[in-house]
Amino acid sequence: MNIKDIKDPSFLKDLSIKQLNELANDIRLFLLDSVSKTGGHLSSNLGVVELTIALHYVFNAPEDKILFDVGHQSYIHKILTGRANKMDNLRKFEGISGFQKRIESEYDCFEAGHSSTALSTALGMAVARDLNHDNYNVISVVGDGSMMSGLSLEALNQIGFNKNKVIIIFNDNNMSIDKNVGSLAKAFNKLRKNKTYNEIKISIKDLLRKRKFGEALIESIHNLKNKIQNNIVDSGIFDDFDIYYLGPIDGNNIEDLIRVFEIAKEKEYSCVIHCVTKKGKGYKYTEQDTIGLWHGVGRFNIETGEFLDKKKQGYLSCSQIVSNTVEKLMDGNKDIVTITPAMKIGSALSNIAEKYPDRFFDVGIAEDHAICFASGLALSGKRPFVSIYSSFSQRAYDQFNHELSRMNLPVVIGLDRSGLVGDDGETHHGVFDISFLRSLPNVIICQAKDSSELKDLIIAGFKQNSPYFIRYTRNSLKEDPNYVSSDIEVGSWTYLNKVNNPKLNIISYGEDLDSIDEYVKDNNLEYNVINARYIKPIDTKIMDEIIDNNKPLFIYTTDIIKGGLYDEILEYLNNKKCNIEVDITGIDDKFIKHGDVKLLKKSCNIDLESFFNKINN
Amino acid sequence: MNIKDIKDPSFLKDLSIKQLNELANDIRLFLLDSVSKTGGHLSSNLGVVELTIALHYVFNAPEDKILFDVGHQSYIHKILTGRANKMDNLRKFEGISGFQKRIESEYDCFEAGHSSTALSTALGMAVARDLNHDNYNVISVVGDGSMMSGLSLEALNQIGFNKNKVIIIFNDNNMSIDKNVGSLAKAFNKLRKNKTYNEIKISIKDLLRKRKFGEALIESIHNLKNKIQNNIVDSGIFDDFDIYYLGPIDGNNIEDLIRVFEIAKEKEYSCVIHCVTKKGKGYKYTEQDTIGLWHGVGRFNIETGEFLDKKKQGYLSCSQIVSNTVEKLMDGNKDIVTITPAMKIGSALSNIAEKYPDRFFDVGIAEDHAICFASGLALSGKRPFVSIYSSFSQRAYDQFNHELSRMNLPVVIGLDRSGLVGDDGETHHGVFDISFLRSLPNVIICQAKDSSELKDLIIAGFKQNSPYFIRYTRNSLKEDPNYVSSDIEVGSWTYLNKVNNPKLNIISYGEDLDSIDEYVKDNNLEYNVINARYIKPIDTKIMDEIIDNNKPLFIYTTDIIKGGLYDEILEYLNNKKCNIEVDITGIDDKFIKHGDVKLLKKSCNIDLESFFNKINN
Repeated sequence: MNIKDIKDPSFLKDLSIKQLNELANDIRLFLLDSVSKTGGHLSSNLGVVELTIALHYVFNAPEDKILFDVGHQSYIHKILTGRANKMDNLRKFEGISGFQKRIESEYDCFEAGHSSTALSTALGMAVARDLNHDNYNVISVVGDGSMMSGLSLEALNQIGFNKNKVIIIFNDNNMSIDKNVGSLAKAFNKLRKNKTYNEIKISIKDLLRKRKFGEALIESIHNLKNKIQNNIVDSGIFDDFDIYYLGPIDGNNIEDLIRVFEIAKEKEYSCVIHCVTKKGKGYKYTEQDTIGLWHGVGRFNIETGEFLDKKKQGYLSCSQIVSNTVEKLMDGNKDIVTITPAMKIGSALSNIAEKYPDRFFDVGIAEDHAICFASGLALSGKRPFVSIYSSFSQRAYDQFNHELSRMNLPVVIGLDRSGLVGDDGETHHGVFDISFLRSLPNVIICQAKDSSELKDLIIAGFKQNSPYFIRYTRNSLKEDPNYVSSDIEVGSWTYLNKVNNPKLNIISYGEDLDSIDEYVKDNNLEYNVINARYIKPIDTKIMDEIIDNNKPLFIYTTDIIKGGLYDEILEYLNNKKCNIEVDITGIDDKFIKHGDVKLLKKSCNIDLESFFNKINN
Repeated sequence: MNIKDIKDPSFLKDLSIKQLNELANDIRLFLLDSVSKTGGHLSSNLGVVELTIALHYVFNAPEDKILFDVGHQSYIHKILTGRANKMDNLRKFEGISGFQKRIESEYDCFEAGHSSTALSTALGMAVARDLNHDNYNVISVVGDGSMMSGLSLEALNQIGFNKNKVIIIFNDNNMSIDKNVGSLAKAFNKLRKNKTYNEIKISIKDLLRKRKFGEALIESIHNLKNKIQNNIVDSGIFDDFDIYYLGPIDGNNIEDLIRVFEIAKEKEYSCVIHCVTKKGKGYKYTEQDTIGLWHGVGRFNIETGEFLDKKKQGYLSCSQIVSNTVEKLMDGNKDIVTITPAMKIGSALSNIAEKYPDRFFDVGIAEDHAICFASGLALSGKRPFVSIYSSFSQRAYDQFNHELSRMNLPVVIGLDRSGLVGDDGETHHGVFDISFLRSLPNVIICQAKDSSELKDLIIAGFKQNSPYFIRYTRNSLKEDPNYVSSDIEVGSWTYLNKVNNPKLNIISYGEDLDSIDEYVKDNNLEYNVINARYIKPIDTKIMDEIIDNNKPLFIYTTDIIKGGLYDEILEYLNNKKCNIEVDITGIDDKFIKHGDVKLLKKSCNIDLESFFNKINN
């Protein structure tokens, strides 16, 4: 069938297992073709083709609620719920999102982007359902990495205790186990080796062929239930949480999946269905990927597996520049240790992990623990570097406050993916960090304008005895082959352009500065251009020079305005009783959707063209 | 012995079990006497007298590191480490803290106040130790409530995986089990019923009497180890985390405790020692307290158990006012549900829990999950009320952002204990919430000046379709017997004093407003006094009136300045190109210690006297 003709999942109910398997093949080819042109989360979606088909076969969305944890693995769900024809605009400006979004479809009852929220939210939905005496199913699909996060475990603790039924699809694609992060991975691994699955398989082969003949199915399932229960010897961790465990099941076998989903549907209490899926299934390159290179990809050539969006010669990702710099510092200082909450690949830390396995710690999806763990190291004289995505660092706000800021501990935090990130959209833009960090005593916040300054700021960070947050984007930067490190004083700004009698002053931080400076110079404008590389503390000497020149001040940022550098500067000026005109460019109290960063900026009038149009008038 | 003469714990090593037991009695009496005069955390400290003595008997602090999770149960530790003579200034201004504090003693290697950080931090310390090839012990004392928090579980996940040894004292006082919160409580309960403990006890009675005779002890312990291991059948949840389990042990039996601590000390890997303690042991009133009334207390009469710091007639705690108001709203709206992260007593929610057991949810110490769970309820049409301490709400920042703000969900958040809380000090002051919430799109933030407005603001909150944060303090407020509810428009401020040609304008929010107004009226001052009950959004009409009168504006707050109402107002004035003089009173980029709120305010020049001295000049 033509995948793009799918309007809703109701057609699935009339298909035989054979037809469902054919559909799975067709969808997989469609997905591969589609993502090869748009980029996106490939491997995880290839892994859940059968699982998603079986879910929509057994359950009746949108009455039944299906929550994909994080949501990056909801592409098949999007395809089955009438969005295949929009997949060519996946994650593009004004196209469909890479996550579940309520505005897109009534089948998206849930939204996320950050990990491990699907169980908590599902329980809330199940409680609401039961208070209303409604009768639908609430189903969460949660990966093994997400399941080990504290938020998921807290939800399991309440789900096991409450009587409100939630169906938990534990999508175990073995990635976290391969990565060997945490003891629960071992516990899950033990579960995977249970023999239950095979016994179910042998004893009731071909059962589901009866589907079309109605009642026979239900009766068979009733008989099955006892059998499965008796087979289960050790439900491990789920037993401790008092949640009924079914599995493990071959998560890529539609027949088995349907069978067990039907059992779960019949039950009156919460249960976990342990589905062992093969991440990246059906495509050579993703199947062979053991480290996660194909987790989120740009465009690629299907035949050769070649990535098409090449990095420019001489450019490195900010993550890699930071990682290389920290690695060099680790060479010279044995007290430096590096911590990541599950972002070894994303934050380009493999070099450190390989060179210093004893001083590198992947703590799994546990941002709060990552910072708390770092505080213990710092209290004992170590110099931790924690690499963390800006948006995910929101999970560690209390640790930034209660541990690092309050005790003034020397931890360097690399806020990777700061600023607008583009395709991943509103849940991933790292635009809030300044606003929630700036009010914390003792913290230092900075951002570099280019690769050399990024290195220098990192080096400066390890000389401080305070929490030191360095923001960097997901962009690639050109490396200066002649780079030599320079000392940077904390709180110091620099003039990129300084004129004697300026018409106005421009203050910014980050990678737009060089473009601003170039524009000003190219047009012979009498503007001061100031690099506010430290957002806290600010450079009071340069601020006083601005007060002295008494010319309008234009602040250019692409972060949330409220709570940011603008406020810091307004406070300073007000404190000095200075009345110069101040203008701010930034994100005005709203969330920014997904899409190309240039288009996003333009749509909010925070692109440089809009900025210069404003200030030149 | 005289407890106040204790200089350090070294003397313990020379005591016999009998003498240690006598010491425990003496300390218990001292503690009771002391806390009856100062207030503090009584029950939890009475429960760990033997445990703490045994810890300091077996381990060698400060070389060995002892971390008390939260730290409210560290009083015995303070007494044994030379601070008994400071207990009469416990939690008082410039006295010793109610938690571990590095500045107080070299025996305090750790600091907290918020729950569940001791395992993460301990692991960091253990890793640092091993990287340095040092050889000391790192011991965390963690309660059963804290153990179920996501942060603790994430730490267990890494502890079980890493090779760095941490000794975990699982202080199971059965409180969370009585409260029946979460399925892990059931799992812990199962562990408690293990028979292991009794067998250990019978087989090696009197062993420790050999202590003074040296080597005999160690050998006996070696023999013991195998015995204990063989006795353990089910280590439950700790087995899943791959952490060696010892127990359960009678946590109030010094002899048993010492014996098992010695075993743990000998081991080369991490282990959990399950100590079943009796919270409040040794004092009639605390022993009989099953609901936590004696968890944190004011002064009391030891003989009668009577609390001495009586509430004034006609006054109710803000928590109780809010709880009563929400209860009434629940009477009329079956969609309202109430959620607390383990603060049923603290936030005075018992009335709701009893009246609406199906619509009341205590989710345990899990602030992030509480908000995520609320989001699921809101997505399904419910109207959740989440009562959460301001300072603990820091744990839910990402959920405020990613769930509530981003999806603009109608959840009412009661930020209990906002502002300066007094005795609990820097980890508990609720002074950051405005700073981290104000930059979130869609959120509404408000605070009432008195009990009637508090009720009205709550009522208004349930009419909004956005996240609605209402701050209230730990104070008691006078109730107006003639209260009738009034509609409040979101974002509206009021004049308490309005003059035609004001000399200046005062803006504040909260409970100091009436005193400010009274002072202004009593002194016939030509000052406008404005109640900025909404901190976001602000009242632009009144702001424009201030701009029109063009007189200085004095903002009075007792929260962190950066990111607060001051910035909101500066932004507005700057946007209107208004240059009136603005002055801010508030906390200037630092943490505030513990002590009486009046003294704290005075010490920071944020008391009303300082404020009026400033503005009258």
